[in-house]
Amino acid sequence: MKAIAVEPGADGPVVIDVERPTPGPGAALVRTLRVGVDGTDGEVIAGHHGGYPADSNHLILGHEAVGVVEEPGDTRFSIGDVVAPTVRRPPGASNEYFERGEPDMAPSGAYYERGIEGAHGYMSEYFTSPGEYLVSVPSSLADLGFLVEPLSITEKALELAYASRSSFDWTAESAVVLGNGSLGLLTLAYLREKHNYDRLYCLGRRDRPDPTIDIIEELGATYIDSRETPVAEIPAVHEPMDLVFEATGYAKHAFETVAALAPNGVGALLGVPEPWEFDVDGGRLHRELVLHNKALVGSVNSNVRHFEAAVAALNKFPAWLFEDLVTGVYDVSQFEAAFDDDDTTIKTAVQFSEYEER
Amino acid sequence: MKAIAVEPGADGPVVIDVERPTPGPGAALVRTLRVGVDGTDGEVIAGHHGGYPADSNHLILGHEAVGVVEEPGDTRFSIGDVVAPTVRRPPGASNEYFERGEPDMAPSGAYYERGIEGAHGYMSEYFTSPGEYLVSVPSSLADLGFLVEPLSITEKALELAYASRSSFDWTAESAVVLGNGSLGLLTLAYLREKHNYDRLYCLGRRDRPDPTIDIIEELGATYIDSRETPVAEIPAVHEPMDLVFEATGYAKHAFETVAALAPNGVGALLGVPEPWEFDVDGGRLHRELVLHNKALVGSVNSNVRHFEAAVAALNKFPAWLFEDLVTGVYDVSQFEAAFDDDDTTIKTAVQFSEYEER
Repeated sequence: MKAIAVEPGADGPVVIDVERPTPGPGAALVRTLRVGVDGTDGEVIAGHHGGYPADSNHLILGHEAVGVVEEPGDTRFSIGDVVAPTVRRPPGASNEYFERGEPDMAPSGAYYERGIEGAHGYMSEYFTSPGEYLVSVPSSLADLGFLVEPLSITEKALELAYASRSSFDWTAESAVVLGNGSLGLLTLAYLREKHNYDRLYCLGRRDRPDPTIDIIEELGATYIDSRETPVAEIPAVHEPMDLVFEATGYAKHAFETVAALAPNGVGALLGVPEPWEFDVDGGRLHRELVLHNKALVGSVNSNVRHFEAAVAALNKFPAWLFEDLVTGVYDVSQFEAAFDDDDTTIKTAVQFSEYEER
Repeated sequence: MKAIAVEPGADGPVVIDVERPTPGPGAALVRTLRVGVDGTDGEVIAGHHGGYPADSNHLILGHEAVGVVEEPGDTRFSIGDVVAPTVRRPPGASNEYFERGEPDMAPSGAYYERGIEGAHGYMSEYFTSPGEYLVSVPSSLADLGFLVEPLSITEKALELAYASRSSFDWTAESAVVLGNGSLGLLTLAYLREKHNYDRLYCLGRRDRPDPTIDIIEELGATYIDSRETPVAEIPAVHEPMDLVFEATGYAKHAFETVAALAPNGVGALLGVPEPWEFDVDGGRLHRELVLHNKALVGSVNSNVRHFEAAVAALNKFPAWLFEDLVTGVYDVSQFEAAFDDDDTTIKTAVQFSEYEER
């Protein structure tokens, strides 16, 4: 079967031919429908993540997948069920994090990540997975199920953020998403649909006309151009934010978030920047965190519960959003286009097969 | 009656003579037993906090008080009840934070702080307070009730810290308290008595022999000398910490806390430093927060619930701890000694009257 992989020395991903995998006990064989592309794939291609699977001289890409169960084996699924697979897997033997359904909380070394580090991803015509790592997706979302994984990342981060405010009476009314990439826009829609924020903002650095600004405004949110209004000045220009959701990976944003927060607010951090030294007014930042009961929570990955919440939310998103957000779905023969990134690209996916209602 | 106050132009606190206050409706008259001294008093004396009460040319000091109800008025208390008063009061009209019992979450401008900003403190022979801001203290703790307020600060910070980890299965086994002042030591005892940490550490910068190191070790904790082991190196020298409790006010500690934390750990920040610019590896710090689901929570002040939890905890502390921790209790005539601070001083209080069992 065909797969899209990175190999040592190659300039970028290539199509390779590999054997169709055979599901073991407790696993299902899944026919891949679509696999989304995101920034992490770019980092994997650039070699910024961990190694190939131990027995392999390549790494099959892709961690945002939706597929159809073809051989359910002894899993709880039936032939034709649409599923999205989670990303983390035990590195050989299982461990407490996987056993209690929280692989997203496992420390480095206690997991592989399919398509990212140590385990093949989903960019192949078929993949196998233990049933416990497959999440049901309604067939109406078969074409969009590749958005479940990124939205689960948002859900996990928001779960941590809300938990951090759960010991007191916290009513969040204003939120800003830092970053107008696909994750930022999905999060903005999630905050609108699920959390009912009165006032939503999204920060980017694009000139109009721009398709992401159109989506921001169609969601009823206010676009903030970071070239005009730096993050720390958001309270002065707009208002202090109860929630800041950082999805830029720009390290200074993590610090400026503290200034952007309203008293008792929380900043959810998701970006993964490289080392970068710079000056901060650490005294003021520390003081501000304390005197106004502010919090910063870092968040990575997601588990089955977050996938399920993401499925429920996607089901409620308006159709226009998907049409505007998904700017390209490409067959394997044109896969390079899915990895291209310019100002007209928001979210792309590679299509391995088409879903057909049974 | 006598009171200890700061006045414009004075070098330090002075004893003044003021009229005994008269309780209004809903308030009680309390005869003061003891009032603790802490770092915030030093900042008030140095003029680093807000103003005097609007109708006053002085500010009576003291926010860590215990007293005996002398005139209960229409409160729920009886004559002779031992009580500790909370610190924040509405600035004129009440507001939502006070109405829901969470004045500790009120933003700047929405509160006065007795003895600190805008309202007289408790360092006087008598004080009045609405009954809702008085917390019952068992008579067995009449001499030590001035420790309720500082311990309530610890309880509030830990409540926020634990809440931030409540969305997943978190078992904290290792904790380090940054700072071996009285709050740090009280916190260490609290972590030992209430939270059952297997492994406790406390960071300071003192040479042996030192009375705070003796307390640390008697509590079964390990002393870390920050001159030998900086905060960021604690994981390498000892172990990564599930909980870091910062009680130094040293701004760099807030940042180094991230490196000291174990995966999924939380840092509770309590210090209130002045502005101070310095270099940080912000990229690494941001990345570390995200990739290991770490959190930082700032915490200030406390409410009645935290006072009640502090009373319950103090009741269980061993007698030796109080003997070692409270290094001086001084009559009003010798009050200056309570404000002296050297390496033999841990916690001091001013005594206004003695408790007599009825």
